[in-house]
Amino acid sequence: MKSDLDRLMAARELDGLLVASAEGYDVIRDYLANGARITGGLIVKRRGGDPLLVVNSMEIEEARQSGLAVKTFTELGLYDLLREHSDHEAAITALWVRALAEVGLESGTIGLYGSGAINVTVERIKILSRDFPQFSFIGETGLTLFDEAFTTKDTDEMARIQSVAERTDAALNAVWDFISAHRAQGEAVVNANGYPLTIGAVKRRVRLELLMRELEDTGMIFAQGRDAGFPHSRGQDDQALLTGQAIVFDLFPRELGGGYHHDMTRTWCLGYAPEPVQQAYDQVMAAFELALAHFQLGQPTCHMQERVQDYFESLGHATTRSAPGAMDGYVHSLGHGIGLNVHERPSISHLRREDRFEVGNCITIEPGLYYPEQGFGVRVEDLFIITAAGQLQSLTPFRKDLVLPLLG
Amino acid sequence: MKSDLDRLMAARELDGLLVASAEGYDVIRDYLANGARITGGLIVKRRGGDPLLVVNSMEIEEARQSGLAVKTFTELGLYDLLREHSDHEAAITALWVRALAEVGLESGTIGLYGSGAINVTVERIKILSRDFPQFSFIGETGLTLFDEAFTTKDTDEMARIQSVAERTDAALNAVWDFISAHRAQGEAVVNANGYPLTIGAVKRRVRLELLMRELEDTGMIFAQGRDAGFPHSRGQDDQALLTGQAIVFDLFPRELGGGYHHDMTRTWCLGYAPEPVQQAYDQVMAAFELALAHFQLGQPTCHMQERVQDYFESLGHATTRSAPGAMDGYVHSLGHGIGLNVHERPSISHLRREDRFEVGNCITIEPGLYYPEQGFGVRVEDLFIITAAGQLQSLTPFRKDLVLPLLG
Repeated sequence: MKSDLDRLMAARELDGLLVASAEGYDVIRDYLANGARITGGLIVKRRGGDPLLVVNSMEIEEARQSGLAVKTFTELGLYDLLREHSDHEAAITALWVRALAEVGLESGTIGLYGSGAINVTVERIKILSRDFPQFSFIGETGLTLFDEAFTTKDTDEMARIQSVAERTDAALNAVWDFISAHRAQGEAVVNANGYPLTIGAVKRRVRLELLMRELEDTGMIFAQGRDAGFPHSRGQDDQALLTGQAIVFDLFPRELGGGYHHDMTRTWCLGYAPEPVQQAYDQVMAAFELALAHFQLGQPTCHMQERVQDYFESLGHATTRSAPGAMDGYVHSLGHGIGLNVHERPSISHLRREDRFEVGNCITIEPGLYYPEQGFGVRVEDLFIITAAGQLQSLTPFRKDLVLPLLG
Repeated sequence: MKSDLDRLMAARELDGLLVASAEGYDVIRDYLANGARITGGLIVKRRGGDPLLVVNSMEIEEARQSGLAVKTFTELGLYDLLREHSDHEAAITALWVRALAEVGLESGTIGLYGSGAINVTVERIKILSRDFPQFSFIGETGLTLFDEAFTTKDTDEMARIQSVAERTDAALNAVWDFISAHRAQGEAVVNANGYPLTIGAVKRRVRLELLMRELEDTGMIFAQGRDAGFPHSRGQDDQALLTGQAIVFDLFPRELGGGYHHDMTRTWCLGYAPEPVQQAYDQVMAAFELALAHFQLGQPTCHMQERVQDYFESLGHATTRSAPGAMDGYVHSLGHGIGLNVHERPSISHLRREDRFEVGNCITIEPGLYYPEQGFGVRVEDLFIITAAGQLQSLTPFRKDLVLPLLG
């Protein structure tokens, strides 16, 4: 969590951090700037010191909402630097060094974070090492400082995640009610006027229900039949819904404009469930319960995934352990951390052997089975937090019915 | 435009392009993948050849919507590479090189584009130069290849931008009608039940009207009074609207889930306009007309900004030319290109002397005046395209009334 930053910097022997960001939403900037609605800017932090936020003077009022110390690019002399340097990027990197000086960093090892255009980063790193040899600017891969910080959430973050979970649940109830007010007409699913219900219409309704609760969709999956058999197929807007098809509905909205996510999946069959889908669903639910039963605080997360893989393999399903790259069977990891990003650490994967369950984790558990050639996929996903008492607590009370009954 | 890519690569002596992207929306990936709804992946292109899209196998169905040749990470041997390399990033960069080989690139100069975590880019570039000396991987700053490509839009892009413009106009008409159905009660603006209208309520209505038209807000400004005096202040949700205050309403929505933007600004006073706001508004409108009158195909865009600066300075206003970093007066550039990004080239700025007006540009023109200490700001912005006939054509028919009349 945020209070770990100095410790995490010490572990990496970093004297300072520099978080750059391009125009648009940036997760690390948002995290450090406490949700201030800025569209760019720079954050520097000395180990043991408070962060300084540097922004375009047009964004000064928004930047002050961060609660951080704020300076403008103008105050740091951007216009002078642009005059002195014919190369725009040389001026920008010189500005970075002035920002570092503002927090008392005149030399040392600086971790570069944030996001940006790859082509620009490649050039800026060259300029930094050429013009400022008193610093060592370094990157990081693998389990990075912010990956580690994000792994556990503090009380404020948990409260925001809880709120997103409650609003997502309310939106999903409204969507269930919307669909169940339709009726079956043969295989078709129609409204009171006999007009067929499409995936596009459902997605529009979902977005509306989210928006009314100050949430935004970030790319939901509502995929039917064969499409549901591909875990990341989003579903086709113009496709009409049919009875007796598996629908994978994976919803991972966030606070409007950027912020904390929820993530949950339900599989629905409208009207009735065919036997193969019901059987796969029962197995997925058994895997889900098995996963919960194998939760152990402090233990590697990979063990939970391996028990689920054992179970699915014992039933004859391929897994990404028994058949890496498989497209049929249980073809993904069991879950992942979530926060400002949809996918964070810890992973619950047999390939991430170092991740462990910790107090403050916010994680999904989402077993699934995929058989596109048989025309279906099934996934069930809830979000959990690990409480201060070390318990796995669900934030996803929504019903787990496979069949969504229709009128008539 | 897209058909210029080979020429733009040749001008940079690039043998190939490699566009990497992190999870989430990436503009350059979206551009090359023709809007396919993928959440990650890699695109490689040899000069003179067609792009190849490489994705996670879970996204294969979505990737095929791009119309590009598609391979999966698995097909390129990701799992083998992960086994061979203890360093995850070394495996990823080795996969990149396999992707380049797929399009016939075994050596040469490769331009790296796309977006990603800065810390990861810094490390990957080191690995690339260490492990693959047969290639020269380079970045680019300034007016990049994709900046140049984005500067002009092809027919398909123009049609999408036109559609976004029409839908934005319809949404804005609905918002105007929504606000004008309120009445003045002293300084307050209230609904039929006497309940005060807040900025938050207006923004919710705007988002709803956009969503009903398959558009999404990307951070609109609806800022009143002093807040309107800061060009990028977004406005405070809990603030009640008052009569006779300047409201700067800057709306730059895009196609739902990522895509082309519109961008427009209106300044409204509810009920009536105080004299200083009316006077500033008249000057901004005169500047707007002056800008249009100085449009000349093929001429530097900076001339248009300089004529507007001349005008504002002649009236005694500071500009960013006469007083760099000024917070009062005319404190920003006159306009910018727009497309998949809100801000693209050409810029209409006295600091960008190389940009010229070209057929296929899609640009904003947006003069403004800002006096936060006097409690107001004014900006008016329309979107224009430069047609095949070389004409500046507005895509923003929305009325330019300063006063939005209320009931009663």
